[in-house]
Amino acid sequence: MLIFLKIQSEVDKLSAYHPLTEQEAIEFSRSIPEFFPAGAVLTSREIGDGNLNLVFHITDAASGKGLIVKQALPYAKVVGESWPLTLDRARIESEALILQNELAPGLVPTVYKYDAELALTVMEDLSDHVIMRQGLVDGNKYPKFAEDISTFMANTLFFTSDLGMNQQDKKERVKAFINPDLCKITEDLIFDDPYTDSPNNNFEAAIADAAEALRNDDALHLEVAILRNKFLTNAQALLHGDLHTGSVFVTAQSTKVIDPEFAYYGPIGFDVGAVIANLLLNYAGQAHWIKDEAELADFRSYLLGSVREIWTKFENKFGALWDEHNADRLASSASGYKQYYINKLLQDSIGFAGCKMVRRIVGLAHVADIDRIEDAAEREKAQRLALEIGTSLIHLNRQAISIEQAIDIVLSATTKHV
Amino acid sequence: MLIFLKIQSEVDKLSAYHPLTEQEAIEFSRSIPEFFPAGAVLTSREIGDGNLNLVFHITDAASGKGLIVKQALPYAKVVGESWPLTLDRARIESEALILQNELAPGLVPTVYKYDAELALTVMEDLSDHVIMRQGLVDGNKYPKFAEDISTFMANTLFFTSDLGMNQQDKKERVKAFINPDLCKITEDLIFDDPYTDSPNNNFEAAIADAAEALRNDDALHLEVAILRNKFLTNAQALLHGDLHTGSVFVTAQSTKVIDPEFAYYGPIGFDVGAVIANLLLNYAGQAHWIKDEAELADFRSYLLGSVREIWTKFENKFGALWDEHNADRLASSASGYKQYYINKLLQDSIGFAGCKMVRRIVGLAHVADIDRIEDAAEREKAQRLALEIGTSLIHLNRQAISIEQAIDIVLSATTKHV
Repeated sequence: MLIFLKIQSEVDKLSAYHPLTEQEAIEFSRSIPEFFPAGAVLTSREIGDGNLNLVFHITDAASGKGLIVKQALPYAKVVGESWPLTLDRARIESEALILQNELAPGLVPTVYKYDAELALTVMEDLSDHVIMRQGLVDGNKYPKFAEDISTFMANTLFFTSDLGMNQQDKKERVKAFINPDLCKITEDLIFDDPYTDSPNNNFEAAIADAAEALRNDDALHLEVAILRNKFLTNAQALLHGDLHTGSVFVTAQSTKVIDPEFAYYGPIGFDVGAVIANLLLNYAGQAHWIKDEAELADFRSYLLGSVREIWTKFENKFGALWDEHNADRLASSASGYKQYYINKLLQDSIGFAGCKMVRRIVGLAHVADIDRIEDAAEREKAQRLALEIGTSLIHLNRQAISIEQAIDIVLSATTKHV
Repeated sequence: MLIFLKIQSEVDKLSAYHPLTEQEAIEFSRSIPEFFPAGAVLTSREIGDGNLNLVFHITDAASGKGLIVKQALPYAKVVGESWPLTLDRARIESEALILQNELAPGLVPTVYKYDAELALTVMEDLSDHVIMRQGLVDGNKYPKFAEDISTFMANTLFFTSDLGMNQQDKKERVKAFINPDLCKITEDLIFDDPYTDSPNNNFEAAIADAAEALRNDDALHLEVAILRNKFLTNAQALLHGDLHTGSVFVTAQSTKVIDPEFAYYGPIGFDVGAVIANLLLNYAGQAHWIKDEAELADFRSYLLGSVREIWTKFENKFGALWDEHNADRLASSASGYKQYYINKLLQDSIGFAGCKMVRRIVGLAHVADIDRIEDAAEREKAQRLALEIGTSLIHLNRQAISIEQAIDIVLSATTKHV
């Protein structure tokens, strides 16, 4: 008993958590060895979107160098301080970033320091990049993205799964990334609310009929229940867990995946599906942002091409890792198993993509690709198109055998919603 | 740093693990409050089968009372001291027993005390019971077993799954029952060795052709790879993890499930399949133990009836818990999902039952129901029958829609191996 009392008193003494001021963020970033020149005049700007974290951008005008200081808040601001969130997610984010940087070098920001007491991570400044969601809304193409994101997913997902690492070590990793609070957000907002009359839902009156249709589609509920169950139980690989285009910093030459605070062991298709869904949400909104018909057709064809390319490259890279680095004798030798496994990944990716589209239209949190469309009629059209694609992907998922089926769904829904 | 050094020195001081002598086991059992009368003359007998644990039976001849003191060994004796096993499995066993006793009262031994340092659990003496495997070999029927084991499985599996408990608390429980060492035994001995040329395998020369056939059956390997993957990744419920008839103490009126040291979060069908497999292993051996044809037919019909009854009662009880206690809104409301889920449990149960039969014939650890048959030709016949049933169940698993299909497999294999 004595020993535990002793530990507790040490913890109390050390426990110094409080949200940093900008001045404190500057002081903290001076502690990174050999980063800023001695005596540098540092400035700080809080640039977080403020839902879950404080994000300080620390810069030294003289050297042009910068750092990001990210601190977790003990609640989710989006729903007020009443939704408490464990600060342990800062550890999860930091450990996930470090691991992802080992498995997919250069595709995530470098972590310089993690402070457990303050739930704070100091990492690479990416202010020369833009958030991909905004880049797409602005009509920019990212020719390296499909290559990079497929490498990121194939490497991080394969090498954290039972296929790519020691299976006993993997169990310890599952334990280290148990993440109940953040998983609950996904379980509620993606896999429950949109299909029932939840106070968390947030949709416009104009599409009330479509929202109601979601609540009354028995076949859809069966598919979502199956996908939800996979999210709850299928500890396949260490996911990023929130891999939408708002979690990706890009330039024409560079891709950096950020914000893995939702990381946990779950179904691989959940990450792949998130990427696909967010490209398709942008697709649904583009008729507003691009007025010229030929330009629109070109950009949409770029987006659909990206979806195809991302899946195909992911499939090929994951398959190549399977062939070269398989740590599981039977998985590696059982005839037909690789094909079976990868086809299940395709099916899951399509199903989860559908769920992620639906929730961005009727659920709590929306996306700028569609929400920022000012014209109500155009916004409604985009929302209906996204819902049509999303629900069709969900209905398809367990029957899917090719990414072309998903592409066909998008094309045929587009024709319907002209 | 100082704080960690302090803790370590406390741990070193307290760390007193050593295998107990019989005298120490007696002293330890005196520490259970109000169990043995003051001044009782206690005797101890080590009764473990000695693979993984010491088991002391402590008795007081005067009062007739007894206790079991079970201590984990830091290695698996079955393969010598070179296979180290974490002592943490004693914690897992003790916590699993306490939880199972809450969820299925009276169907596991009561735990009186757990000592983490000594990896030791003091529990209810069940020496008025017999190990079910021996009881079945002796030709005894256990009319209450199907009722009890189906209750045990339905209650412990439903209420530890995402269906029957808070889904965030479940994740913490997954963490508490991460069990890499014991899972590895299963992963190797059940889901790998029998299908390759492993030095762990152990089969008689007479069935070398059948063992070779296992190594060359592509379709079988695909099914086993899929089942192995479920064992590795599907955190459905807190399993017993080793639910064979050697882990069950019985009398005509009582069933007590023991030894949950393999407990971890895995696929529900693995427990159900273990029970079915071990009844069918006994079935395969009975032609030796019972010479009279009518008696044999009667006992086999009792065993097959038990398999049917166990599945049917399990299905009904699990379904009733689903209807009354479902903690998952969507799972509960999605039309057709309950039927889908329970049919998957049937398929998994059949597949895992097959794997467990196969490994007991060609793998490292065998069962007395078949191994103790003295006549070589009869033993071979029983082994071939068990292999035929096991492989057929594996081939069937993903197509199964009724337990009757499993029963039919047994009947038709029996005809073939007369």
